[in-house]
Amino acid sequence: MASIKDFTWHKGITAKDLVGSFGNVGLQSSELHKAAETIIRMKKASAKIYLTFTSNLVTSGLRGFFAQLIRLGLVDAIVTTVGGLEEDVMKAKGEQFDLGTFESNDYALYEKGINRVGNIQIKNESYAKFEECIIPILEKSYIKKKRWAPCDLLASIGGMLTDKDSILYQASKHNIPVFCPAITDGAFGFHLFMLQQKYPDFVVDVVQDFKRLLLMSSQDELKGLIALGGGVSKHFAILGCLLNGGLNYAVYMTTARHTSGSLSGATTNEAKSWGKIKDDADAVTVIGDVSITFPLVMAHVLETLTEEGLLND
Amino acid sequence: MASIKDFTWHKGITAKDLVGSFGNVGLQSSELHKAAETIIRMKKASAKIYLTFTSNLVTSGLRGFFAQLIRLGLVDAIVTTVGGLEEDVMKAKGEQFDLGTFESNDYALYEKGINRVGNIQIKNESYAKFEECIIPILEKSYIKKKRWAPCDLLASIGGMLTDKDSILYQASKHNIPVFCPAITDGAFGFHLFMLQQKYPDFVVDVVQDFKRLLLMSSQDELKGLIALGGGVSKHFAILGCLLNGGLNYAVYMTTARHTSGSLSGATTNEAKSWGKIKDDADAVTVIGDVSITFPLVMAHVLETLTEEGLLND
Amino acid sequence: MASIKDFTWHKGITAKDLVGSFGNVGLQSSELHKAAETIIRMKKASAKIYLTFTSNLVTSGLRGFFAQLIRLGLVDAIVTTVGGLEEDVMKAKGEQFDLGTFESNDYALYEKGINRVGNIQIKNESYAKFEECIIPILEKSYIKKKRWAPCDLLASIGGMLTDKDSILYQASKHNIPVFCPAITDGAFGFHLFMLQQKYPDFVVDVVQDFKRLLLMSSQDELKGLIALGGGVSKHFAILGCLLNGGLNYAVYMTTARHTSGSLSGATTNEAKSWGKIKDDADAVTVIGDVSITFPLVMAHVLETLTEEGLLND
Amino acid sequence: MASIKDFTWHKGITAKDLVGSFGNVGLQSSELHKAAETIIRMKKASAKIYLTFTSNLVTSGLRGFFAQLIRLGLVDAIVTTVGGLEEDVMKAKGEQFDLGTFESNDYALYEKGINRVGNIQIKNESYAKFEECIIPILEKSYIKKKRWAPCDLLASIGGMLTDKDSILYQASKHNIPVFCPAITDGAFGFHLFMLQQKYPDFVVDVVQDFKRLLLMSSQDELKGLIALGGGVSKHFAILGCLLNGGLNYAVYMTTARHTSGSLSGATTNEAKSWGKIKDDADAVTVIGDVSITFPLVMAHVLETLTEEGLLND
Repeated sequence: MASIKDFTWHKGITAKDLVGSFGNVGLQSSELHKAAETIIRMKKASAKIYLTFTSNLVTSGLRGFFAQLIRLGLVDAIVTTVGGLEEDVMKAKGEQFDLGTFESNDYALYEKGINRVGNIQIKNESYAKFEECIIPILEKSYIKKKRWAPCDLLASIGGMLTDKDSILYQASKHNIPVFCPAITDGAFGFHLFMLQQKYPDFVVDVVQDFKRLLLMSSQDELKGLIALGGGVSKHFAILGCLLNGGLNYAVYMTTARHTSGSLSGATTNEAKSWGKIKDDADAVTVIGDVSITFPLVMAHVLETLTEEGLLND
Repeated sequence: MASIKDFTWHKGITAKDLVGSFGNVGLQSSELHKAAETIIRMKKASAKIYLTFTSNLVTSGLRGFFAQLIRLGLVDAIVTTVGGLEEDVMKAKGEQFDLGTFESNDYALYEKGINRVGNIQIKNESYAKFEECIIPILEKSYIKKKRWAPCDLLASIGGMLTDKDSILYQASKHNIPVFCPAITDGAFGFHLFMLQQKYPDFVVDVVQDFKRLLLMSSQDELKGLIALGGGVSKHFAILGCLLNGGLNYAVYMTTARHTSGSLSGATTNEAKSWGKIKDDADAVTVIGDVSITFPLVMAHVLETLTEEGLLND
Repeated sequence: MASIKDFTWHKGITAKDLVGSFGNVGLQSSELHKAAETIIRMKKASAKIYLTFTSNLVTSGLRGFFAQLIRLGLVDAIVTTVGGLEEDVMKAKGEQFDLGTFESNDYALYEKGINRVGNIQIKNESYAKFEECIIPILEKSYIKKKRWAPCDLLASIGGMLTDKDSILYQASKHNIPVFCPAITDGAFGFHLFMLQQKYPDFVVDVVQDFKRLLLMSSQDELKGLIALGGGVSKHFAILGCLLNGGLNYAVYMTTARHTSGSLSGATTNEAKSWGKIKDDADAVTVIGDVSITFPLVMAHVLETLTEEGLLND
Repeated sequence: MASIKDFTWHKGITAKDLVGSFGNVGLQSSELHKAAETIIRMKKASAKIYLTFTSNLVTSGLRGFFAQLIRLGLVDAIVTTVGGLEEDVMKAKGEQFDLGTFESNDYALYEKGINRVGNIQIKNESYAKFEECIIPILEKSYIKKKRWAPCDLLASIGGMLTDKDSILYQASKHNIPVFCPAITDGAFGFHLFMLQQKYPDFVVDVVQDFKRLLLMSSQDELKGLIALGGGVSKHFAILGCLLNGGLNYAVYMTTARHTSGSLSGATTNEAKSWGKIKDDADAVTVIGDVSITFPLVMAHVLETLTEEGLLND
């Protein structure tokens, strides 16, 4: 059993060392340290790694970090919601989001054509840019074929981008599937609708994505999950793994609490009752804002894995 | 400006009176009172009312209450996730869920074939019962047509149920659309996949649901939202209303917080920056567990509306 | 094991019936029902009941309700913080607090001499009224004796008030001790300081309160706690009971979470490791805003106890 | 206005650089960055700095870090609760706390004589060690004088310790007052009681601490607050500063939310309505577990200040 040890700062302390100390600090910092250890183990064991995140994290500067993680070979599948993917495209096309405040005069923002996500601001023009970019891509896609699995459509979009900080670009390049279980739930849904108005035989076949999810893992394979936030992204990844025998490794990072019985707040323990997570799995939940906890935990993970030569160049 | 008044209990106090007092108690109880007033106003103004909820609420005993609200004519559209709809079918077929505890030995539950959702327990047999029921329904549906909008498929399922406490049954009977933006994200997804394996031309056309959502409201109409919990359910309803000029009334009831910038925790203020909610809308957020706050707020609402003859018999 | 049952509303539903239904709804509503049952049992068993609350609840309209609970004979000791007691005096002297909003222009409020507590507003004049009232009371007290236990001083203040909705008035009248472990942490502290400047031999002897707390319970007696919110109020009551063999009944109602290891968020389980709560105790934690959950739970409790003739007239 | 920029990891990234990047990541990470900038500014401006924290943080490994901050000259006054100070003494006497889990069999722990604070475990022997140490210290103190201000008593205890990682030791050595507004609310209270039983003229004069707090700052001086967690510690420091014209700098780090109107969750905005924080003050609230956010923010602060030669050797 580990002991609590007095943390002290030293000049030049690296993010890795800081997380290393957390193992003896207790409270959530120790859970964060355990999360780092768990991710390191899942990678060393060559588990298939599912990374899920909510849209607000793509609104934030973590978007380029997700792209980097794909590039470094740390991720085998992504599950997310469509709002973030729209923003990934906007940013890939050069749109810039601004840092504002959590307390704004929201009607004044509205009148200026600014949309708020927490303390981040997105201009209406960024949505116009998305529209301008996505319509020709969808047209081209329709010409190729009429019935699309969502993850193929997203791979096709990623293939037409050129921004190395783009999630869709990197996923497409590295052949990593991006699942989006509610593909119509955003501006993208509107453009899919417009295309179908024009070409009534255009179909987005969500059942094919389910099949893809199901087939990408097998019962024999080790499976690991890093779930950032909750919602359908988290659930869809867990579902796929459950149908293949359950997770061997699971790291949940969230602000949701377990007391309401929601899937977003459900702990790794609750998951064990379902067989979503194996009884002997490495599993840990870190409570906190992912914009802080995730870069911190991964700084430790990436440093360790790069020292052991386990990351792509 | 209202004053804070000392609350005192009296013998036989009704739920309506209790909520009435809350208007002068302050803190979240006053927000709850404001929510009741807002829902009463949206109904009196004949606004189109969107009700969204997360699956865990259907796991709970609120499921029959949602069915009752449809029956009473308080709801014009429902948006939810598929897990809850599966459970609605299980319960319609006589399956019973049990009350356990939040702290369980989850592996012991697993070995007994019991799945935990907070302090509620679902047996594996309930999933077997769902399977047994849903496969012939899906087969019959495929015979009728090959390409289904999710909300038509759900209406079709509701039409084959007979339980007056079922959400799908009441929605089908009263012609209320049930939207499910991530229709494959559950056991239902697996059965859709099996059907498509058997009949490759079977298609679930999610874009049609987007069209349905878009067309069901117009710019002219008043629109109200009651969002219980967050996630895609909340977002999809907001999106539909945004594309039709924004909401005139909005009640958010949730435990999520705004500090992470997630849509689940986004306040009605943040929504105004997007034009999701009109600047002069009646809008209120109640923080708390929906299993407590929603029945309480609605006890006040229904009592008031029934006195005014505004509910169905 | 209880089953989950579909809740349905009926015309004229009482608060008691609503809470009664909650026992089969699940999630936090079932915990709230369990809290009601626990409080009923502690009263029926003639346990000594400690009620603790934070200042913001006295700012709210629950202040008169706490006074009513003392009058009805439901409470044997109170523990709270000094800010609320100051406000109890202000209200006893006719000051009125107003309902505002959680999002205010706080500097504008400041310029108008208005202080905000969540969505409740307190005018500077209310503090002036407190000062005007408390100075002569303190002077009179000093004349009586020079060394005061805080709970005697508070009883003495209560004895000079006449408002039946006042906590201090009712506590004084019914001989219920009001403990305030941080008696100087507010405007009251400033007035104590001014008195000591004038009379250097004036002493507030906090150790005497500890003795009082310790002696008021015995090892043999049954002990119950209703802790609303956390902080020193909750801890001081628990401490007193721990030193007398631990609690037989405990109801925690709070929004704090257990994940940070704070006493405020500590669950009744954690308390068992300390012997604060006996292993076989009735113990339950209800997560939610106390301004909603407490009146609701008590509506059930008081209705039941009054039917059984267990309340004072 | 700052832009959101894609964060990417690089080999050897320091904690300082990580926090530096956070300024462009958005969500809570940007607030954390703002907190670091604010603390740097308060130190550069030679503001008097109040540091407040809750007991659980002393239970954790942050205890040695608080001691280090005093040693480095970053803190001018401390406000905390007594439980943590007891644990500071235990640790100074060589007691070791262990890292456990948040989900424990708490009755089994009780039977083993282990007390749980979140995921940290304290043995009963550690309390015995505290008793053994504190009784002679109190006896000696009584011989010196009969009437003690709490902060003098705590300084006297610190003076009898020798552990450089002890908060009380460093505070005593550097002449930094440690305020504890609820000095009897813990095991220490019991020992004070026992001493008073033996020597009835022994008095802990809490009003003297109020005076000390009031006199330590003046209206002219710049004042900064770093409040970790809430409760009386946070409130007492704010109160002292309010009476001296309000804070010029304020950093709140907490998990509590503003929606219940508690002081613990009160934002820096709410504080402005009271004049607790000046309108033009640098003020920021960081939501998250302090065991993670505080070492991270301070790693940036200390690195910057040491580069500028603003820390003690």
